[in-house]
Amino acid sequence: MRIAILGAAGMLGRRLAERLAAEGLLAGETITAFTLHDIFPAQPVSGNFDVEILTSDFSEEGEAERILSQRPDVIFHLAAVVSGEAEADLDKGYRVNLEGTRALLDAVRKIGGGYRPRFVFTSSLAVFGAPLPDVIPDDFLLRPLSSYGAQKAVGELLVADYSRRGIIDGLSIRLPTICVRPGRPNKAASSFYSGIIREPLNGEEAILPVPRTMRHWFASPRRAVGFLIRAAEVAGPGLAIRTLTMPGVSATVEDEIEALRQVAGDEAVALIREEPDPAIHAIVSTWPKAFDARLALDLGFVPDASFEEIVEIYCRDELGRA
Amino acid sequence: MRIAILGAAGMLGRRLAERLAAEGLLAGETITAFTLHDIFPAQPVSGNFDVEILTSDFSEEGEAERILSQRPDVIFHLAAVVSGEAEADLDKGYRVNLEGTRALLDAVRKIGGGYRPRFVFTSSLAVFGAPLPDVIPDDFLLRPLSSYGAQKAVGELLVADYSRRGIIDGLSIRLPTICVRPGRPNKAASSFYSGIIREPLNGEEAILPVPRTMRHWFASPRRAVGFLIRAAEVAGPGLAIRTLTMPGVSATVEDEIEALRQVAGDEAVALIREEPDPAIHAIVSTWPKAFDARLALDLGFVPDASFEEIVEIYCRDELGRA
Repeated sequence: MRIAILGAAGMLGRRLAERLAAEGLLAGETITAFTLHDIFPAQPVSGNFDVEILTSDFSEEGEAERILSQRPDVIFHLAAVVSGEAEADLDKGYRVNLEGTRALLDAVRKIGGGYRPRFVFTSSLAVFGAPLPDVIPDDFLLRPLSSYGAQKAVGELLVADYSRRGIIDGLSIRLPTICVRPGRPNKAASSFYSGIIREPLNGEEAILPVPRTMRHWFASPRRAVGFLIRAAEVAGPGLAIRTLTMPGVSATVEDEIEALRQVAGDEAVALIREEPDPAIHAIVSTWPKAFDARLALDLGFVPDASFEEIVEIYCRDELGRA
Repeated sequence: MRIAILGAAGMLGRRLAERLAAEGLLAGETITAFTLHDIFPAQPVSGNFDVEILTSDFSEEGEAERILSQRPDVIFHLAAVVSGEAEADLDKGYRVNLEGTRALLDAVRKIGGGYRPRFVFTSSLAVFGAPLPDVIPDDFLLRPLSSYGAQKAVGELLVADYSRRGIIDGLSIRLPTICVRPGRPNKAASSFYSGIIREPLNGEEAILPVPRTMRHWFASPRRAVGFLIRAAEVAGPGLAIRTLTMPGVSATVEDEIEALRQVAGDEAVALIREEPDPAIHAIVSTWPKAFDARLALDLGFVPDASFEEIVEIYCRDELGRA
């Protein structure tokens, strides 16, 4: 079985490749080969695999065909122009996120001859827009308020239609906000959600720009990789629903801080400095607070048990602490 | 003010052009010019207007720019590959309905220099799919079960995003099934909904392939044209919602037959012959039965008062009877 990952140099793509290589199996079948694609060179996985590393913009003419030339049995499509860039550069966002995704699906179709791979597409909570209920049900409408969200919603529609037509066995999954993101703070409005855990655990000060009552929807990188793998497992020909909101942990900033206190004590919490930022507050207060992700739970997608577990996973997976 | 109509040779496009020409005004402004585009030559409107007639496939390279070269103030985008053809020819459906619509929106963007036309896009009930509640609310999710429905849903997302970004002042409207459609029966599964009224009124026999309890959602051609005009009126910069399900008349086949009896008597009703067709029954039984189209009603979209009015409109507008 050959696995293709688009976005294989990204935070989730790297972890997905490593985990699949370590397990050596997907949906009960032995993995023999990887196609790891990104716009930056992806790291090869370790183990006895045929590994193809491709570096390009997948939305450019002919690239989708090249990426699929080895006919991967499972395609994980994690590649995208991110939210801020898709808003700043309308052309690029639509070209990569919409036309690129369509080019990939059409490249599958043109191979033909019974080729029908499993196709896991990472969608986003950005397909939803205010006004939102406190707990969002599985049948809530799409109302993106960013070009990125609109492009992800279009991707969901394409994956569902191409699945219905028997071209792929697809599944779009809307990932929670990943927390704790490893690495450095960045300019994303969501950066502080990871920062207030990550920086104190590394002995550094963290800025909290919003009130402690702010609530949002989270998954650890480890669980997010689990969602991708579970998506590939369940995306068979018989699946009726082709778009799923992933389960997560609904937590307030206060919940985050208490989880940090449980794991690392008062000294860690003392490193969080409250510095209200009305601009960040305005952005994140329109974001979803919680979902009733019943369909995904029924299909065996397993979320983190608590925000404390999210902090512990960061300590174990990223810092190597027990 | 210049009006552009794409799909101007179609049933609604022709009626829209004639009505706008007769009124001479749209949203309080004087109409001076028309751009009438279709893949077949559109009829010129009568009156003292500058009329440009363009005949082409609007999705072909450079056509969107040509259609917009006179910078119409209002664009009615009614052009589409229809449902059956979009299902039979995946390439053509996506090329015209998705890429064509995006090319049109991008042609607007590239004109720039403050050009920001009103843009009315005809969407469809095909964006919804079973399981459906008996009465569908305005915030019900998109779940198309045809490629046509998926392409219309993508069009809605594009119109909303390009409106949010200030490129157009857009509004997508989901039209009810048009009834009574003038002309001859066709192979569409919905054909009988018009046929059982139209044929008896013309002294001909009509086939009824489904039970009399079957319920669906209707608007007359006259009301549908009214929806298009109202959409152009309300699609200003301040509009918060860019996609609306149109109000209509929820009627069973029995309601249709009773309306026919009121208008044309028992002899007309006697021309309806019941001939059950399980294939047609299976298709139309997945279709929406009724909507709570509150947002559109609040914005002044006016549906037919009853199915009897729908029959009377056909008699008056198409048969010239009082």
